[in-house]
Amino acid sequence: MWIVPEREIAGLMTRAAAFDAVEQVFAAMASGDACNFPVVREALGHEDALYGFKGGFDRAGLTLGLKAGGYWPHNLERRGLINHQSTVFLFDPDTGKPSAMVGGNLLTALRTAAASSVSIKHLARPDAKVIGMIGAGHQATFQLRAALEQRAFDKVIGWNYHPEMLPNLAQVAEEAGVPFEAVDLPGMDEADVIISITSAFSPSLMADHVSPGTHIACMGTDTRGKQEVEAALVARASVFTDEVAQSVSIGEAQHAIAEGLITQADLIQLGAVINGTHPGRTSDDQITLFDGTGVGLQDLAVAAAVVNLAIDRSVAIQVDF
Amino acid sequence: MWIVPEREIAGLMTRAAAFDAVEQVFAAMASGDACNFPVVREALGHEDALYGFKGGFDRAGLTLGLKAGGYWPHNLERRGLINHQSTVFLFDPDTGKPSAMVGGNLLTALRTAAASSVSIKHLARPDAKVIGMIGAGHQATFQLRAALEQRAFDKVIGWNYHPEMLPNLAQVAEEAGVPFEAVDLPGMDEADVIISITSAFSPSLMADHVSPGTHIACMGTDTRGKQEVEAALVARASVFTDEVAQSVSIGEAQHAIAEGLITQADLIQLGAVINGTHPGRTSDDQITLFDGTGVGLQDLAVAAAVVNLAIDRSVAIQVDF
Repeated sequence: MWIVPEREIAGLMTRAAAFDAVEQVFAAMASGDACNFPVVREALGHEDALYGFKGGFDRAGLTLGLKAGGYWPHNLERRGLINHQSTVFLFDPDTGKPSAMVGGNLLTALRTAAASSVSIKHLARPDAKVIGMIGAGHQATFQLRAALEQRAFDKVIGWNYHPEMLPNLAQVAEEAGVPFEAVDLPGMDEADVIISITSAFSPSLMADHVSPGTHIACMGTDTRGKQEVEAALVARASVFTDEVAQSVSIGEAQHAIAEGLITQADLIQLGAVINGTHPGRTSDDQITLFDGTGVGLQDLAVAAAVVNLAIDRSVAIQVDF
Repeated sequence: MWIVPEREIAGLMTRAAAFDAVEQVFAAMASGDACNFPVVREALGHEDALYGFKGGFDRAGLTLGLKAGGYWPHNLERRGLINHQSTVFLFDPDTGKPSAMVGGNLLTALRTAAASSVSIKHLARPDAKVIGMIGAGHQATFQLRAALEQRAFDKVIGWNYHPEMLPNLAQVAEEAGVPFEAVDLPGMDEADVIISITSAFSPSLMADHVSPGTHIACMGTDTRGKQEVEAALVARASVFTDEVAQSVSIGEAQHAIAEGLITQADLIQLGAVINGTHPGRTSDDQITLFDGTGVGLQDLAVAAAVVNLAIDRSVAIQVDF
């Protein structure tokens, strides 16, 4: 079997490879070729840690396995380690034997950014010029960097609850040669694409902050109770998601569903748009919203891609297991 | 992190080490120090395989992780590999980083045999002389070998649906210097201890096949619908189990519960007997029954033990992950 340590990932994985892997697996999910397993997530009562497993199987890509890990909130202060810790384990679907173990920390950031980028490719207006960011943390920089490759954006605008973090976004914009401007939330009506990537439990982006024709990628809500955008905005939009079951239970759509503004039947798998079985955006005035909840199959897909890259470049460690 | 391949397990792990690990983790489960996570088990629709994860955390032993794998029914015929394939992954509970990967195939057999042995130690009459086996497959030989170490047995009796497999049991008995005799099911009334280890979906052992004072370990039923012993026998016995939630849903007790003969409140964690918070057997006439369903924490416990042995003997592979 092959082992690809965390330290090798940055030198191997590209945004393009992550994008392709996530786009393919979303398509396989929508066609019924790939399915995610029930998610296990447990509070350990030790180090205040949350730990669990996200697994799945992609019959099209023949990718089987799980991401295991979680959130250790005291890692950084106590040990100088990052708080999110995860590892991906791949198995040979023909035999059940383990085939690879891959560091999952950077991959998680890349696959999450790839998901919003896939939604922008398939749902944003082709002529989108202004991208707005809600959130300016570590994940937000990955999101913006990937999104800037999807359209000919000529301006980045950003808002964050803690404005002192906005230079994180300004730096990514500068590297891409695009001007950055801090705005208040009503100023988001200038954006053609908005990505929200916060860990908020109450909405920041309201329906009247968004102009007709905007594409919104809600990437922060992955737990019951979290919320980034007003439910009325979800109700006004055409809503796409990675996984319907997660969208209604732990995704941004949970609130619009709970308020009776939309039903599960209103949610469309993004993979259906990729596959061409759903038209996606059908007018320039339509608001499209992608509810990105994060699924195990994304992790497996990017891990499988990085294993191939690591073998090609002779940096994978081979172990006779 | 440390890697212990399957090929090293046989040379490292002892029945005694498996026994101690399983006894300790049963105790930790009963005291509330250790908990199993929800089990994931999925039919893949590929190679007719079943695949899933059994995880848990033992705060007392500081053991965190999961067993991943399952059943690939065509492995042997198509590839010369065993059909049950599993791997144990351990994590550092202080940081969330992976600490060990261990071949789980032989360990699964050893930890299952250890569970019935722990039940015999704590529940069988001290003067037990005759052990009866229901089942004569690969797992049954592990069960018998471990059980023979728990009491001064002077006879092994055995029954199997396919009698041509009984020589498997005879050989283990012979190696232990104990005579073996094939019996019919009513002949099991001679036994002081009975282990059932089959994959049956209807009962073999009936209430009137069992004498007062017998200890029965039901080790085969781990799925809804499986059944090894008559529900009336479960109702007549004092019932102990590894994990109450599994016993009522996928264990031998499921049928007596469904028929209204017993309730969940009648089930006792074996760990409570180990801890001394439940008296266990209280008379020589009492029938005790252990419903061994198999929990992830057993796998983690024996894997942690074997990692320590492998490091001590310099056969663990160290990988800078």
